[in-house]
Amino acid sequence: MDTDRLQANSLRDFATAVYASIGMPEADAWLAADTLVQADLWGHQSHGVMRLSWYVARIKSGVCGAVARPEFVSDFGALAVIDGGDAMGQVLTALSMKEAIRRAKLHGIGAVGLRNSNHFGTAMYFTLMAPPEGCIAFLSTNASPAMAPWGGRVKTVGTNPWSWAAPAGKYSPMALDIANTGVARGKVYLAKQKGQAIPEGWAINAQGFPTTDPIEAIDGIILPMAQHKGYAIAVMMDMLSGVATGSAFGSRVRGPYQSKYRSGAGQFMIAINIEAMQPLIDFNARMEQMISELKSVPLAHGFDEVVYPGELEARNHETNTKLGIKLPEDTMADLLKLARETGLQDKLPF
Amino acid sequence: MDTDRLQANSLRDFATAVYASIGMPEADAWLAADTLVQADLWGHQSHGVMRLSWYVARIKSGVCGAVARPEFVSDFGALAVIDGGDAMGQVLTALSMKEAIRRAKLHGIGAVGLRNSNHFGTAMYFTLMAPPEGCIAFLSTNASPAMAPWGGRVKTVGTNPWSWAAPAGKYSPMALDIANTGVARGKVYLAKQKGQAIPEGWAINAQGFPTTDPIEAIDGIILPMAQHKGYAIAVMMDMLSGVATGSAFGSRVRGPYQSKYRSGAGQFMIAINIEAMQPLIDFNARMEQMISELKSVPLAHGFDEVVYPGELEARNHETNTKLGIKLPEDTMADLLKLARETGLQDKLPF
Repeated sequence: MDTDRLQANSLRDFATAVYASIGMPEADAWLAADTLVQADLWGHQSHGVMRLSWYVARIKSGVCGAVARPEFVSDFGALAVIDGGDAMGQVLTALSMKEAIRRAKLHGIGAVGLRNSNHFGTAMYFTLMAPPEGCIAFLSTNASPAMAPWGGRVKTVGTNPWSWAAPAGKYSPMALDIANTGVARGKVYLAKQKGQAIPEGWAINAQGFPTTDPIEAIDGIILPMAQHKGYAIAVMMDMLSGVATGSAFGSRVRGPYQSKYRSGAGQFMIAINIEAMQPLIDFNARMEQMISELKSVPLAHGFDEVVYPGELEARNHETNTKLGIKLPEDTMADLLKLARETGLQDKLPF
Repeated sequence: MDTDRLQANSLRDFATAVYASIGMPEADAWLAADTLVQADLWGHQSHGVMRLSWYVARIKSGVCGAVARPEFVSDFGALAVIDGGDAMGQVLTALSMKEAIRRAKLHGIGAVGLRNSNHFGTAMYFTLMAPPEGCIAFLSTNASPAMAPWGGRVKTVGTNPWSWAAPAGKYSPMALDIANTGVARGKVYLAKQKGQAIPEGWAINAQGFPTTDPIEAIDGIILPMAQHKGYAIAVMMDMLSGVATGSAFGSRVRGPYQSKYRSGAGQFMIAINIEAMQPLIDFNARMEQMISELKSVPLAHGFDEVVYPGELEARNHETNTKLGIKLPEDTMADLLKLARETGLQDKLPF
């Protein structure tokens, strides 16, 4: 392992200790820590431990509860609504996804609407709970305003990410994790933290002009993916995650980088039991056939291989578990500061 | 009404008569005709009556059954799988969506996987069956290869459209209908039929070079929306519609413009009963609030208004119902030819 790379285990132990030190139960602290480290392992650093200090600030300010006390608002057999009472989104979403999977095993398909939750990090962390259970999963969330409605110039629509995941036989699970902006907002923050310019086409500034400055972009407006299509998908995900679950929606949802406001974010998740449709072994064989067909297509100019959704993340996971995780300097500084504040310098992995 | 515009009713009567003349039961013929005319009313002419002759050719050649005899392959309470036996996709999908809604009323959420179906036209025709029933609906389909996997240069991945629809109180329902190519394949056919060039960025030709010629584009490769994201979504929709339902998938799915091959297309649909989550009246009020917030955002340069998903289609429906439908000349010629072949000249609305 390079000396400047950190072992996932020790990074996870540190983040767990930080969360536990501010009142989270040990198992929940581990889960919340694992979601961050897992994002780093997948190469999604914008959703990795760089966010630890954001979540800690929200728990300390009291807008996010350290202890989750979820309550069932309605229970209709295959579908339930859970009120998360403003606790950690990661903890609530994992719990709700388990509940959706349990209901899928009973009814063929199961779903949970989660209201009064929080930002949960990376959507595919939770949909990937389904494949080991022989299930396909869908998950959507709403998020704080990041883009303008198509044709508007004030941001009122979130990136509102959504994810699907499914088993894929001998391959690592197929997993899709989409933010409906042309680029995930976290990537703009990462560019800011690295002091890098962002590509043209990612954002316009507050005055409505194109910008490559991440700071201007954060104050301005991120553009939707695929123009009006990304806008329309984002609105539909808010319908499902916010309006239908009974959570906040539209401009009322607050982001994880704001430490003084309750989030109001909602999530909607669906699990589908594959065995209710066909033997899992047949499904897996068909997935292998599909993936092998995709990967055997002759290459376009400038490409080394065709990958299927989730393949790069699985490969990054393997590499980063072996070699260790390399964090940006700003993130290292953030973690050091956090260690001092919580008195956990001895747990710091560097 | 302009003399060159056709009344929706008479166009629907003609298409119904054509379908009935080749053996479809009257109610099914009406439904299949209505899906075509509805697409024209919404302004989606690429999926309108210009397709009538394609479907007729498929039924005549025997690869698509005129009479639907759907069979339940599995029934797991909230989730069922139906084998469509290669009958009309429109008839099978409408029937399966009704079944999903019925199950949602019983279990909170209901789903149907439909295998051995056919191309069904416009996805939102079927998801829009849910809002009048107090339900939200999702529908995905796979389709014949239209794009290459990202990084490849041979098309093996369909446009694989998907749709969500939900009630919206005093507003017409919110409806999303997305093809994962940058542009729906039907729009390339429409451009060809109108003799128009297509914009750059829609497609590359068979040799891998950008093209604005619709004929070259049809022989070449349509590009995915939002680059790799559109590819990943398309693959995931095939996982759901083809692999999971037990239908054909990948390059084995055949398109409606091919009259000699069975389709193999599959569909997956989900209905969610809103009353299982909150009173429908509350949901509708929240939808109205969401839409009115979107529509009141200050406008960007070059825009007259902000619309929500499905609003333009609802407006086109109203206008075209009142003024009549204006068809491209090539489509008129196709319909005339069809009237002669079926001996239904007296039913032709022009």
